[in-house]
Amino acid sequence: MKAEIISTGTELLLGKTLNTSAFYLTGQLSGMGIEVSYHHTVGDNKERLLLAVNQALDRSQLVILTGGLGPTVDDLTKEVIALVLGLTMDFDRQSMANIEKFYAHESDLPPGSENQAFFPKGAKILPNDVGTAPGALMEKDGKYCIILPGPPSEMEPMFERYVIPELNTIMNKVKERMYVRVLKVFGLGESELEQELPDLMQRATPFLTLLDKHTYMDVRITMRSSDQDLAWQKINETESLIRQRLGSKVFGVDEETHSQVVGNLLRSYKLTLATAESCTGGLLGEKITAEAGSSDYYLGGVISYANSAKEKLLSVSKSSLLKEGAVSAEVAGQMAEGVRRTLAADLALATTGIAGPGGGSAQKPVGLVYIGLAHPQGIKVEKFQFAGHRDSIRNMTVETALNMLREFLLIYN
Amino acid sequence: MKAEIISTGTELLLGKTLNTSAFYLTGQLSGMGIEVSYHHTVGDNKERLLLAVNQALDRSQLVILTGGLGPTVDDLTKEVIALVLGLTMDFDRQSMANIEKFYAHESDLPPGSENQAFFPKGAKILPNDVGTAPGALMEKDGKYCIILPGPPSEMEPMFERYVIPELNTIMNKVKERMYVRVLKVFGLGESELEQELPDLMQRATPFLTLLDKHTYMDVRITMRSSDQDLAWQKINETESLIRQRLGSKVFGVDEETHSQVVGNLLRSYKLTLATAESCTGGLLGEKITAEAGSSDYYLGGVISYANSAKEKLLSVSKSSLLKEGAVSAEVAGQMAEGVRRTLAADLALATTGIAGPGGGSAQKPVGLVYIGLAHPQGIKVEKFQFAGHRDSIRNMTVETALNMLREFLLIYN
Repeated sequence: MKAEIISTGTELLLGKTLNTSAFYLTGQLSGMGIEVSYHHTVGDNKERLLLAVNQALDRSQLVILTGGLGPTVDDLTKEVIALVLGLTMDFDRQSMANIEKFYAHESDLPPGSENQAFFPKGAKILPNDVGTAPGALMEKDGKYCIILPGPPSEMEPMFERYVIPELNTIMNKVKERMYVRVLKVFGLGESELEQELPDLMQRATPFLTLLDKHTYMDVRITMRSSDQDLAWQKINETESLIRQRLGSKVFGVDEETHSQVVGNLLRSYKLTLATAESCTGGLLGEKITAEAGSSDYYLGGVISYANSAKEKLLSVSKSSLLKEGAVSAEVAGQMAEGVRRTLAADLALATTGIAGPGGGSAQKPVGLVYIGLAHPQGIKVEKFQFAGHRDSIRNMTVETALNMLREFLLIYN
Repeated sequence: MKAEIISTGTELLLGKTLNTSAFYLTGQLSGMGIEVSYHHTVGDNKERLLLAVNQALDRSQLVILTGGLGPTVDDLTKEVIALVLGLTMDFDRQSMANIEKFYAHESDLPPGSENQAFFPKGAKILPNDVGTAPGALMEKDGKYCIILPGPPSEMEPMFERYVIPELNTIMNKVKERMYVRVLKVFGLGESELEQELPDLMQRATPFLTLLDKHTYMDVRITMRSSDQDLAWQKINETESLIRQRLGSKVFGVDEETHSQVVGNLLRSYKLTLATAESCTGGLLGEKITAEAGSSDYYLGGVISYANSAKEKLLSVSKSSLLKEGAVSAEVAGQMAEGVRRTLAADLALATTGIAGPGGGSAQKPVGLVYIGLAHPQGIKVEKFQFAGHRDSIRNMTVETALNMLREFLLIYN
């Protein structure tokens, strides 16, 4: 089944709002085996929207529109869909009741609120659990049209709760699907991967695609098939071949993040972790604690941005700071061991480096980073030279620190 | 002048690559006063690409395409443009020489490399300083077509170095442009802003648009004019009116971030800052240190995720933790004062709360957050109840903490 996504809203055409909805929907649809063949982004303009919807319905079986469901006159989506499908508009009492409930604590309904309860006749209403604009699903001559609210905070829960079950029902009538597994690889670039997997890159089925995710690479194994068991068997075989060649460089699968994988290892070994951050300024702690449940293994850390913080909170020696400088293997090791001791953690990671754009020198250029790992048997420090802007250097430092810890944990047991 | 952007590449339709190029180009073009009226995303498919280019050139004066300039057969962009504009292909010696130079250290050129030196006849070549695929600019009957490479790392420098000067020359022939200023507002939602600015929201010129940025609102003041001085004068007047009504709720202008604004205030008052983070786990430090030069005022902080870290690194009293709990006004104040004293900072911010999804109770639900601000004259703690997922709660906590500090600094002097 082919699908197109139409994002409406003039704000998307002003360059201040990144179109994450099309990205989100494409990911969701691809995951279900629905092929997205086109994205459109249209302003709040009736003619252009009409053209886009007509075109999309012409060549694809499923069209998903986001945005334009608000109460005001520039919200055109439902009107346009009714026009294209040749339907009149119908008032939905249940939606109106929900809207009234939403505004129960206010004395008046905002003007135009009742517009949000009108839908093309015969539409299946998709409730909005977090806002006022419901979505809807329309079918005509075997083609499906789904309209969803613009704000991702309303659109995403609606999609997951109400649209996925509808699509599953529709998809049960379609036989051939796409099956995908993603292997996440750290420490190898695109051309290095091509050299490691030349034969697999040539194969037609399952086929491999490489995607550069800045701090790591995605290796996607994709197969189109009408036989689910066969597809997963072939994908599993291909995954095994890739893992044989890349070993521990494969750090995760599908949606797994590096910090999730490391967190699960720490949890299963019942080990605790602390952090000491200079150049990453809290980013390492932030990535670790972005995972719900990270308090099982993460005790906390120190952001030792100024040298005084390194001395006071981490007991880094003044003489090392003076002789070796804050960006040195010596200081990285002391930071890791300092925070490990203070917080009585099993393991600790420390980062110190020059994130730029200022602060570099001939001896210590921008991008020079030391990462320390303190563990019960000692301290390990590695030196890195990263390229790019402040952001990339900080991100690469965090991912590399997580990778050092992961590689350590893999041989720990 | 109206423009459309066509992004090509099947990877954009697999849901694993966010289309940041269209976002980047839209921002650049809007900034130059060029109105972007449509985005297309097309896979590597000749028919669909042909249709998209024809349609775009039909209704817009400028069409920018990214991607599809590689050496392989699925790279169709130049072929399609030549077809649409009725041009033959021409070999460009200079581009070929650059490609050969790029591969000088390898024994052979990759297959298909010479394809990258062919262009529609009459095209102006845009050199690629970091890769092998040059871009090009074509003009026909007053319409402009620009092709750029897909990878942002090649596209963006090419755009800034070679495309902007060309567009400036083209724009000098066009009189009317869009002028935009963005005011960033914290603490008011969309409907509250509509109530504060009803008269200004009605005005046709300059016109206001409101954009919900999750943690804050953008109020965009836009004016289309052929007189630059008049446009900025009208926009300045409107900005003054808005500032009179919203006061310190306006925290920044255009590209300014909250942490940048706070950082500049700290720098100008020569004050230092420390942080103590529980529920935000490093995100506050990360946002502060994302600004280059933040070491001028930020000393560092503590991520006190476990209670033991609150006691050991921040001297939070065990009895407060037992009696009030880690998420309490008492502990937030002690955390702020603790890190302020330890790092000898002028000011300190502390966060403690329940980010969820687990860990909530009837007394202390998910989203309950205390933010502490310690300063030379005392300690201020505020209580908040945020809605949404773990990510939103953490982000709202950080922005609210920065806002508390900003409001404090505004009346400090």
